[in-house]
Amino acid sequence: MESAALSRIGLAGLAVMGQNLALNIAEKGFPISVYNRTASKVDETVDRARNEGFLPLTGQYNPREFVLSIQRPRSVIILVKAGAPVDQTIAALSDHLEPGDCIIDGGNEWYENTERRISQVADKGLLYLGMGVSGGEDGARYGPSLMPGGSKTAYNNVHDILHKIAAQVDDGPCVTYIGEGGSGNFVKMVHNGIEYGDMQLISEAYDVLKHVGGLSNPELADIFAEWNSGELESFLIEITADIFKVKDEDGEGFLVDKVLDKTGMKGTGKWTVKQAADLSIAAPTIAGSLDCRYLSGLKEERENAATVLKKAGLSDGIDVSGVDKKRLIDDVRQALYASKICSYAQGMNLLKAKSNEKGWNLNLAELARIWKGGCIIRAVFLDRINKAYRRNPDLANLIVDPDFAIEMVQRESAWRRVVNLAVSAGISTTGMGGSLSYFDNYRRGRLPANLVQAQRDLFGAHTYERVDRPGSFHTEWTKLARQSGTGVGSLN
Amino acid sequence: MESAALSRIGLAGLAVMGQNLALNIAEKGFPISVYNRTASKVDETVDRARNEGFLPLTGQYNPREFVLSIQRPRSVIILVKAGAPVDQTIAALSDHLEPGDCIIDGGNEWYENTERRISQVADKGLLYLGMGVSGGEDGARYGPSLMPGGSKTAYNNVHDILHKIAAQVDDGPCVTYIGEGGSGNFVKMVHNGIEYGDMQLISEAYDVLKHVGGLSNPELADIFAEWNSGELESFLIEITADIFKVKDEDGEGFLVDKVLDKTGMKGTGKWTVKQAADLSIAAPTIAGSLDCRYLSGLKEERENAATVLKKAGLSDGIDVSGVDKKRLIDDVRQALYASKICSYAQGMNLLKAKSNEKGWNLNLAELARIWKGGCIIRAVFLDRINKAYRRNPDLANLIVDPDFAIEMVQRESAWRRVVNLAVSAGISTTGMGGSLSYFDNYRRGRLPANLVQAQRDLFGAHTYERVDRPGSFHTEWTKLARQSGTGVGSLN
Repeated sequence: MESAALSRIGLAGLAVMGQNLALNIAEKGFPISVYNRTASKVDETVDRARNEGFLPLTGQYNPREFVLSIQRPRSVIILVKAGAPVDQTIAALSDHLEPGDCIIDGGNEWYENTERRISQVADKGLLYLGMGVSGGEDGARYGPSLMPGGSKTAYNNVHDILHKIAAQVDDGPCVTYIGEGGSGNFVKMVHNGIEYGDMQLISEAYDVLKHVGGLSNPELADIFAEWNSGELESFLIEITADIFKVKDEDGEGFLVDKVLDKTGMKGTGKWTVKQAADLSIAAPTIAGSLDCRYLSGLKEERENAATVLKKAGLSDGIDVSGVDKKRLIDDVRQALYASKICSYAQGMNLLKAKSNEKGWNLNLAELARIWKGGCIIRAVFLDRINKAYRRNPDLANLIVDPDFAIEMVQRESAWRRVVNLAVSAGISTTGMGGSLSYFDNYRRGRLPANLVQAQRDLFGAHTYERVDRPGSFHTEWTKLARQSGTGVGSLN
Repeated sequence: MESAALSRIGLAGLAVMGQNLALNIAEKGFPISVYNRTASKVDETVDRARNEGFLPLTGQYNPREFVLSIQRPRSVIILVKAGAPVDQTIAALSDHLEPGDCIIDGGNEWYENTERRISQVADKGLLYLGMGVSGGEDGARYGPSLMPGGSKTAYNNVHDILHKIAAQVDDGPCVTYIGEGGSGNFVKMVHNGIEYGDMQLISEAYDVLKHVGGLSNPELADIFAEWNSGELESFLIEITADIFKVKDEDGEGFLVDKVLDKTGMKGTGKWTVKQAADLSIAAPTIAGSLDCRYLSGLKEERENAATVLKKAGLSDGIDVSGVDKKRLIDDVRQALYASKICSYAQGMNLLKAKSNEKGWNLNLAELARIWKGGCIIRAVFLDRINKAYRRNPDLANLIVDPDFAIEMVQRESAWRRVVNLAVSAGISTTGMGGSLSYFDNYRRGRLPANLVQAQRDLFGAHTYERVDRPGSFHTEWTKLARQSGTGVGSLN
């Protein structure tokens, strides 16, 4: 085989994501070899490459030929299921790879697995990247957001390819070198957690507008389309507008009303919640969005609860017929935006905490930038986050960025009105309420945590600090309370 | 050494908890040998046993003598720090223990560590119990709540001792055999998570009564004392009343106002939150209480945020001077109770999910019963939970128990009023709001999760189910939406 005939890069794992990413790479002019254990997937990809314009893509049917068809130092992207299949693929390929070659895992992998594999393949002199890929099947084909972390050398070997295949926005391609170790996977994981939060918040806006405001699906389609030309402009708002337009082809009315209210999930959202707990980062909006998915799954239990509570005398909620529709719509828009800021603040602070723990030196401004295109959470709003972190890379919280602070204050009243209305109407706004609670906890110099700490000192001798002088104190609360006699309140 | 001189049981690890538990055992008439690596702790315990009435307690100064001083089959309680110290203590003792002997770890250990140790010591024919002990130092001395899990044989060897040393309530001692494996530790972990929730809810009641109702500390002491003679009667309510009575001996006013609003924590709360995520159980009240602890720790950030947001124009919250104090107090009491039901529902469902996963066959009614005394969450209310699970051991959720359902409905309006008032006043009620949101999600037959699932199907082809017929469906939402033209709403 002549050197000239070698491919620039390889890709193993030809489910739809893998096929699409390979076609994207080939289309950008980089000759690529593809491989899959099931030969028919290879044929399928080769056919697609031919049909989509004779793209420079070569099918390979065994690991050895596949590896040998790539120019050195070799870069091989693998797109198989996270976990054991990744290990199996690495094992199959690494027999044939040579020192300096690199494996790039593009799956939603747990970051510690990537770190384990980095050490493992290093024994053979191989390099490794764990690369978050967001944007789903369409993103993979036409421009995803890419989050590669691991070997900087390996990144440099492919950065021209990644820059070309990534989504392109006003200030460049949606890719950057994330950092060492499993940082690329970790960042993608938090991206997904934020995505859960965004989807939950949008569903609450829908719930309030539909049940309190009485909006029809066509009205909702209009409102979301309108919102998509303002501060909320984003992929998720755009597709939500589309969803409300779709009629049920198999029946009467709109399809969204026929969709069962049970939401599935994969692992990354849960990982995000668990990492937040590990790192002592409050992430109530993201955690709440997971809770709502769990509870959505309990459809039969919920239907039973509705019956039992009705029997126990629960009313149908307050009469909201007098609600000013136009004002409600405007309030919900503002509540959604303010809640979103708090949700992103949680995600960014989780990234910051992990970066500090692992020494990844994550560039939060850059992360916001590469999410502006290609991925599910792409939004105009991310440009504001990018600017906030460029103004102050050590920003403690998005809420205290001067621009965001003003935006929060402007939306605060509307936000409280929406949450109150929902509470009164019996419509839970888990995400919006969680964000508001986060905001109110974070912005108060004094919280009632003094009581909790006093309780801990009373029953567990955990000690407390004082507001007026340094030191650690313990008090015999019960003894002193009994000495002081009963209360001397004058309520009665 | 004559057999008659042998102790009935041994205890290693003589920090305050260990000393107190040993004295408790000795006081109940069971001769006990005690051991600690630091000899002075042994002397201290021996002195205390003498001073507290020549209790049958023998000090031992090396592991071998300690073990040999106990009658067979030997039971040795260890009370050392969770993690490596437990392994070290096991290693030191097991050289001298014989098949059929048992180690009982009384620490707050991660349940999987216990399961690992069960297998490990089984190789030597040793038995093992992981026993949750709640009630702090006082509980250990005068009657804790005990949650022993692991070897049933080992439990039978000591059940007479455990029954005597545990707290005694109307329907028996606060101990029961929990189940196999690490179930005792797991149950104790969830107990602690529930405790976090209770403390958070009480601190919110305090916050609302103080800042919205304008109650003074003596008034708060009276209110909590009054609550402690009703449906909220519990250890935590009782000590809260006491805390408000304590004057600052080093200055003016009440001590609680001088306590810094920073709350510490140990590992069990975080473990609970992570387990809830693993098991797909919504636990927002418990998770929210952790979030509030994290945020309480960011004192300087919070003070800065207060300044930044004031500068950005944030007002001081609504004027609440017109609030009816008496009604507010009654509302807060009801909100606290309803929130508590939801928090316990979360904890019990977490236990049920784990029990199903592990095959532990946990008896939820019994767990509620053994928490009625001795432990930090002891409360009259637990008797109602016990009854609910006795009525229906397979109860899906406490909320749908017929009695609790009625209680929820009775308190619902007050609960919504309190959360609304707090939202308006800018006082976050993370726990009460989280509980309410949990309630409103659980009791609705239809949630807006249909939109989330439609979004997932649109961008990730995750498919959806329909409300009107079985099957799994995928729709080309975007294509159909574009075909349908723009929205046809009539808002303008």
